Amino acid sequence: MPQRSVVEAPNPLREGLRIKHSPEPCVMVIFGATGDLTHRKLLPALYNLALETPLPAGFSVVGFARRPYTDEQFREQALESINQYSRQKPVNPQVWESFASGIHYLQSDFHNPSGYEKLTEMLNKLDHERGTGGNRIYYLSTPPSQYPDIIQNLGAAGLNRSRKGWTRIIIEKPFGRDLASARELNRQVAKVFREEQVYRIDHYLGKETVQNILVFRFANGIFEPVWNRRYVDHVQITVAENVGLEGRGAYYEEAGAIRDMVQNHVLQLLTLVAMEPPIAFDANPVRDEKVKVLHALQPLTGQDVVANSIRAQYGPGWVGGHQVTGYTDEPGVSSLSVTETYVVLKVFIDSWRWAGVPFYLRTGKHLPKRVTEIAIQFKQPPLMLFKRSEAHGQVEPNVLTLRIQPDEGISLKFGAKVPGSEMQIRSVNMDFFTGLLSSANSPRPTNASCSTVCWANQRSLHAVTR
Amino acid sequence: MPQRSVVEAPNPLREGLRIKHSPEPCVMVIFGATGDLTHRKLLPALYNLALETPLPAGFSVVGFARRPYTDEQFREQALESINQYSRQKPVNPQVWESFASGIHYLQSDFHNPSGYEKLTEMLNKLDHERGTGGNRIYYLSTPPSQYPDIIQNLGAAGLNRSRKGWTRIIIEKPFGRDLASARELNRQVAKVFREEQVYRIDHYLGKETVQNILVFRFANGIFEPVWNRRYVDHVQITVAENVGLEGRGAYYEEAGAIRDMVQNHVLQLLTLVAMEPPIAFDANPVRDEKVKVLHALQPLTGQDVVANSIRAQYGPGWVGGHQVTGYTDEPGVSSLSVTETYVVLKVFIDSWRWAGVPFYLRTGKHLPKRVTEIAIQFKQPPLMLFKRSEAHGQVEPNVLTLRIQPDEGISLKFGAKVPGSEMQIRSVNMDFFTGLLSSANSPRPTNASCSTVCWANQRSLHAVTR
Repeated sequence: MPQRSVVEAPNPLREGLRIKHSPEPCVMVIFGATGDLTHRKLLPALYNLALETPLPAGFSVVGFARRPYTDEQFREQALESINQYSRQKPVNPQVWESFASGIHYLQSDFHNPSGYEKLTEMLNKLDHERGTGGNRIYYLSTPPSQYPDIIQNLGAAGLNRSRKGWTRIIIEKPFGRDLASARELNRQVAKVFREEQVYRIDHYLGKETVQNILVFRFANGIFEPVWNRRYVDHVQITVAENVGLEGRGAYYEEAGAIRDMVQNHVLQLLTLVAMEPPIAFDANPVRDEKVKVLHALQPLTGQDVVANSIRAQYGPGWVGGHQVTGYTDEPGVSSLSVTETYVVLKVFIDSWRWAGVPFYLRTGKHLPKRVTEIAIQFKQPPLMLFKRSEAHGQVEPNVLTLRIQPDEGISLKFGAKVPGSEMQIRSVNMDFFTGLLSSANSPRPTNASCSTVCWANQRSLHAVTR
Repeated sequence: MPQRSVVEAPNPLREGLRIKHSPEPCVMVIFGATGDLTHRKLLPALYNLALETPLPAGFSVVGFARRPYTDEQFREQALESINQYSRQKPVNPQVWESFASGIHYLQSDFHNPSGYEKLTEMLNKLDHERGTGGNRIYYLSTPPSQYPDIIQNLGAAGLNRSRKGWTRIIIEKPFGRDLASARELNRQVAKVFREEQVYRIDHYLGKETVQNILVFRFANGIFEPVWNRRYVDHVQITVAENVGLEGRGAYYEEAGAIRDMVQNHVLQLLTLVAMEPPIAFDANPVRDEKVKVLHALQPLTGQDVVANSIRAQYGPGWVGGHQVTGYTDEPGVSSLSVTETYVVLKVFIDSWRWAGVPFYLRTGKHLPKRVTEIAIQFKQPPLMLFKRSEAHGQVEPNVLTLRIQPDEGISLKFGAKVPGSEMQIRSVNMDFFTGLLSSANSPRPTNASCSTVCWANQRSLHAVTR
């Protein structure tokens, strides 16, 4: 199998598909088990799986980190996190009891080989006691600087494969800082793990509406015929946050909006919207089609960068009724920083389907509203038959909006006649809310679309950085 | 202008478009002013126009009928009807006062020339007193057998045109009983009126969703590309009534479902769904495109009649919790009647757009549910990518439903992913309700589609009639 570059997408569907083949018991080793990601996301997510799926019997967690905890202490912290962050409250005592019995803690530095010897012992013991059959998942939930040490030590200890069962490694973004460092990390991973053992994760892709994009496009007969340059005027992909840095100044100062959001989440959304139908709904065919989109992206070079991108930074102001400081006054941020907190890119995909159709990619922090959505704006009908209604406002183009958060769902804007004896046309929405699918399918009132949000209060970085 | 046959459609849009050019004052003469149609529909509709539009100053109504009433008595009856049947309650005293001041009554037999002399005098007087400028509308709200008398007398009295202003005649369905009688009626009309004076009315076409069909199709860019044989599997047009004859046995016995509903309402809906885009949204271009659809209809002949049609009659049973008698036990109906109360036709349109796509036309009385709707069922996507979800039921095709009554609106059924870690697809609806457009655009819960209604309790007439 040829090596994949980091622009090749982690596949959110892989896991989902596997689950149908009755999941096997395994041990998940979480490196960086005392960190924020583990407690806010991983442990609550695992508990939710235990509650809903349920998890395979014997499923176990080993928390691997530097701080000195006992199993019991780590379990207490896990329970606290689940209490705070699980969407299913209150905690179910039986489920927790069973889940907690599989939670263990292993104290070690990431670079210390003896920690990995202890890990080998513990995994073998768990295989024996809990029947996990040699199946392991390593989850790297540490700062990226630790990845090489952990990967190398796993390899040195022979933990990169089991005598029986399978071994997988999950690597969170950011996967390197640029092309060179991403290639270097890939090289280190590939020295120890085979490609099919490696899962590069973008947690954004677990959202229902993201997963629904392919279903919407390919399980229905009526959208795909208009999903191309002949009918689509342009596409807007927006990831707007109303929050600021939330104490992550030191990290963000090194990253900026493009590294934090665009190269991962936004480009993933782009590939899902723009890809050709895969030959099958399986990991590799879907991945291959996504890669084709990324290869077909026109690079932004030379004057195009100025013409087709905007970078900006938030200043002091008001968000949601609260006064907020400007970016350069945030803790951990240089007062001279030119790190962008807002970015818009206008990109083109040089494919038969999309040639000439602009895709606007837009993300930022401290914006007036939190919303993630993909808006596909269609062209006007070829002939304006209802000219006489112009007195009542131009007929607006159709817009199909795939809303990822909040209120995950789909809206279609179309023109309809206003009741009455005059021929007056107004744009209206048909809405569907994903969250209501699990119970009953009843619609809810629409939120104003993101395109109505005013993008104020962003100081342009163009002058600063060029 | 060549003479139009009755299969050429009356144009629902004509009036709507004209209203924008500030309506002129006129007198509406209602022949058969004491009848059911006048009191249940015409007078309440005129009052609603007075309330909403408003009507042009001086607008007047002359009720023409045999019964001996004074203006005052006729006004009292009109108020009673408006109180009972107007959708705007209670009656606004100022609007009623002004509207009533223009209402007059003229007692005469329809065949008596002296009645038309009195009418001439009255119209001239109204022109003088109320400034109606010689503009007249004659509304034939009598049994069809009276039409020839009235038309002939209008001509003889010179009331078929005014010295100044315009003269129009409105003829309600049924326009003849068959091709020969329709042609004969048309001939009589044409002797007295020029074609552009004649309005053949199908009141069904005034419904908002009917008028919305063309807007939906042609003011939006995304529906027309899939509105053809390449993407549409079949179309169902359903006009289901839960009521029975409601005392109209003698009429219905002579008509039956095909004459009562199919040749007018249902075929009109068919033309609106199937027509090509007109070159302009004006009366003649729209009429021309409708006629093309009717000309392209494959005639049902020979064995096709048996294979592609069902005629049936309701028997005794239960509808909506009430026991109802069978058709042949209804007052005014022969116990040996083979008049159909239910009909289904499978028809094909031999056009480039629709060749090979079946259109199912279906109507009947005493059905489980009152619903009028057009359901466009699309073909499945060419490739079934989501085969693995078959365990959870086949992916269903897309259906676009234009609901005309009740709850006028539009629904789109499409497949979406059920939230959760499995790839399970379920059909969901996006809905839009026309009635909510005038105020706010907020959706309401969906009714079950008509296609789920069970068409039970209909005795087939095939054996009886062939």
